[in-house]
Amino acid sequence: MSLKYFFEPSSIAVVGASPLTNKVGGVIAHTLITNMQKGVLKAKVFPINPKYDTVFGVKCYRTLSDVKESIDLIVVAIPAPLISQIMREAGEIGVKACIIISSGFKEVGNVQLQDEVEKIAKEYRIRVIGPNCLGIFDPFTGVDTLFLPEFKQLSTGKEVLATPRPLPGSIVLISQSGALGAAALDYMAGINMGLRCFVSLGNRIDVDESELLEYFMNDRMTKVILLYIESVAEGRRFLEAAKKTSMRKPIVALKVGRSKAGARGAASHTGSLAGLDQIYQAAFEECGVIRANTLEELFDMGRAFTYQPPALGTGIAVLTNAGGPGILAADACEASGLELVELSETTKKAFEEGIRKGIFPPIMTYSNPVDLSAQVTSDAFQEALKILLDDPKINGIIVITLHHTPFVMDDVVGKIAAPAYEKRKPVIAVDIGATEMAQEIRARFEKFRVPAFNSPERAARAMYALAYYGKFLKEHGLVETV
Amino acid sequence: MSLKYFFEPSSIAVVGASPLTNKVGGVIAHTLITNMQKGVLKAKVFPINPKYDTVFGVKCYRTLSDVKESIDLIVVAIPAPLISQIMREAGEIGVKACIIISSGFKEVGNVQLQDEVEKIAKEYRIRVIGPNCLGIFDPFTGVDTLFLPEFKQLSTGKEVLATPRPLPGSIVLISQSGALGAAALDYMAGINMGLRCFVSLGNRIDVDESELLEYFMNDRMTKVILLYIESVAEGRRFLEAAKKTSMRKPIVALKVGRSKAGARGAASHTGSLAGLDQIYQAAFEECGVIRANTLEELFDMGRAFTYQPPALGTGIAVLTNAGGPGILAADACEASGLELVELSETTKKAFEEGIRKGIFPPIMTYSNPVDLSAQVTSDAFQEALKILLDDPKINGIIVITLHHTPFVMDDVVGKIAAPAYEKRKPVIAVDIGATEMAQEIRARFEKFRVPAFNSPERAARAMYALAYYGKFLKEHGLVETV
Repeated sequence: MSLKYFFEPSSIAVVGASPLTNKVGGVIAHTLITNMQKGVLKAKVFPINPKYDTVFGVKCYRTLSDVKESIDLIVVAIPAPLISQIMREAGEIGVKACIIISSGFKEVGNVQLQDEVEKIAKEYRIRVIGPNCLGIFDPFTGVDTLFLPEFKQLSTGKEVLATPRPLPGSIVLISQSGALGAAALDYMAGINMGLRCFVSLGNRIDVDESELLEYFMNDRMTKVILLYIESVAEGRRFLEAAKKTSMRKPIVALKVGRSKAGARGAASHTGSLAGLDQIYQAAFEECGVIRANTLEELFDMGRAFTYQPPALGTGIAVLTNAGGPGILAADACEASGLELVELSETTKKAFEEGIRKGIFPPIMTYSNPVDLSAQVTSDAFQEALKILLDDPKINGIIVITLHHTPFVMDDVVGKIAAPAYEKRKPVIAVDIGATEMAQEIRARFEKFRVPAFNSPERAARAMYALAYYGKFLKEHGLVETV
Repeated sequence: MSLKYFFEPSSIAVVGASPLTNKVGGVIAHTLITNMQKGVLKAKVFPINPKYDTVFGVKCYRTLSDVKESIDLIVVAIPAPLISQIMREAGEIGVKACIIISSGFKEVGNVQLQDEVEKIAKEYRIRVIGPNCLGIFDPFTGVDTLFLPEFKQLSTGKEVLATPRPLPGSIVLISQSGALGAAALDYMAGINMGLRCFVSLGNRIDVDESELLEYFMNDRMTKVILLYIESVAEGRRFLEAAKKTSMRKPIVALKVGRSKAGARGAASHTGSLAGLDQIYQAAFEECGVIRANTLEELFDMGRAFTYQPPALGTGIAVLTNAGGPGILAADACEASGLELVELSETTKKAFEEGIRKGIFPPIMTYSNPVDLSAQVTSDAFQEALKILLDDPKINGIIVITLHHTPFVMDDVVGKIAAPAYEKRKPVIAVDIGATEMAQEIRARFEKFRVPAFNSPERAARAMYALAYYGKFLKEHGLVETV
């Protein structure tokens, strides 16, 4: 049965709903009821708990059967030993999908209990996400089962946002770790990355990453899929699904458990075998899955895909107004297998002419990196970028616009973004620093859909992702279709 | 002659001073005069320029000789071809030190001009920093020759800080690249890293990184020295100076120009030969210099050394309330040669007992990573940290306190910092996210002198630096002295 009942249910029952917001079932019921009342969530919400008559002003039912209306999705937050009984009841009344939040299954050794729940779900054809998961946050349909406290009170008395929700956007995040997922959403919210949907997988007795890849592959609003995994549920199935998906949309994966200690951690965390890293590496290469080496990279690459087209080759140019950062970018590009190509004769002539005409500072150097020097103006930056975009050997450009040099003002952002827009070649920006102007420049670049990083190395890794994916598309003759 | 005339001059002449703050000599004169008037700079400032009678209210002299007072330091910001003449004049009146800001020397092919200036300086025994550099920023003595505009006006009309100065602190930054240095200061200011002193090397006709290492080695206020270099001036000299310095203080180096394109960039940037990376690597290992792989790492490692003692071995424990991030930390530790050691029997028993007594959540796992689970409280975090600090096989601890779990409040910071303070074992913290509470938690950790990062991998690399340096100290029998 389709996964759409998870993301677009007509009705949701919260089993274990409670009026207490320090209880998991209380947080979930509160969020869903609020979303329903705001009109974000189009589904009816039915709290289920024999202890209460109403929950947050909504009628509460003793059991699922008492509801007497069709229920698409149930969200289960009750102790693990009670879940089999609920699943049977759900099956009898035709529930289609179930998110089991509760832990206490295979991850703590209760294999039998987990097997039983799995068997019942199969018998009644109920699709299951979890157990031992955070569930779903879909900012478009309002399905939100994150049960971590949204606000917390600091010891100063100040109330702060503790588990923020990112804005709606085009990035899907699928995570085998719940807490990592929540932390990731916090990061995305903080840097204004838009989320299409978040799914926490947990112990995966049914729905797994492969099926979700296929689901979001066909989703119009999804641009890129980020994956945090400790293992894949089924190797062959994953290969098939990932390859098919990659042909339509980029997948960036952070696969952990590479080390001995990491694998040990994975085993006790989600009861999964991390497996030989080389096998994963080979599988990812086969399927066009881009591998992130760190959490930071996972999101950096996600941002790059959100805003920029793939690079159709490994030929990169670095355009800079500062020598040192240009060298850092060059080193990082080449370490990732990108090539700082020699500029074509036409390109070199264009720079020579530009210097002669006074467009570019006479002390600039136009080997690659192209260093416009600290004398550069925003206009010269634009002219240089145009020249590089026209060079057929260059497939992508990293532009380092340190705002510290005398004549670079914030108008440099528009000057860079405009020509970048016209050509289907990726452009990634860098400005280093952490105070006002650096933040302003980077934020403005992002508004112009140019990903902007605070270090040359991060930009280089993001560009690598665009080139890696471009290569996959070319190998499969798909360049025109994406 | 000692370098102290650069950092603690009694008098400074600004050659090329101007009342115009869009001129290099204008910015420098303005900063120095302001610092003198505020009492930060204890030196007398003499503007030198035949065109003006006064500069920012201070008497301006036609030539150096006209000053008729002793001048310790001159800062030169006039066209390159005029500098030889000024140097001779300075030599005649006994100037001791000279910062040549001006470019137009070897980096653009004017080798002869540079050689001439070098010869004159030697003849008159004037010590020189530069040419082609930003000079010095010493927040303690007010010597500040950064000529990049401090404020800029955005197109919205808002005036913002463009080249901020970090607060006084204990980190020395020596950079061969000026612009990178300015950007680095911006980053330090933004994340509240305190600066002991910044020196931009430029073309290094005299003062080089080796001499500066020895200078700051003996400086009471310096805790750690960060180095950005494209090459070292003299290999043998560097080996000697770096080794001697490392025995007293950690040096973290970002050596760039590893790649073909990077080396090309270095050649045209500061006219330096990047050299074989393996040779640098071997030299760094010999001298105990910690190598940062990225700009971000350079500062992360600097922060770790500012706040924490070296780790006296490679045995690391990861303490976490979230499985996924714990695994990321484990992977990153082992990738850097750190080892997640097996916990001792005593440690395991302490955790067992803690679970039995209800101190720790029953679902916690105490292999390493130690996963306290999402049920953890701040008190349990403290107890667990104490147990791990007592384990003799553990030399350093990464504590991941995701604030998203229900019972972790901001008091976790104090609970972690207190036991960390008592033992001479490094503790590094992680909280992931970019919104309010994550920022608050990390900032508070830093106030408690526990470096805090937004990703497990960054924490692991910082811990690697502490262990690498600890190993060097042990090998040289210096553990007790540092």
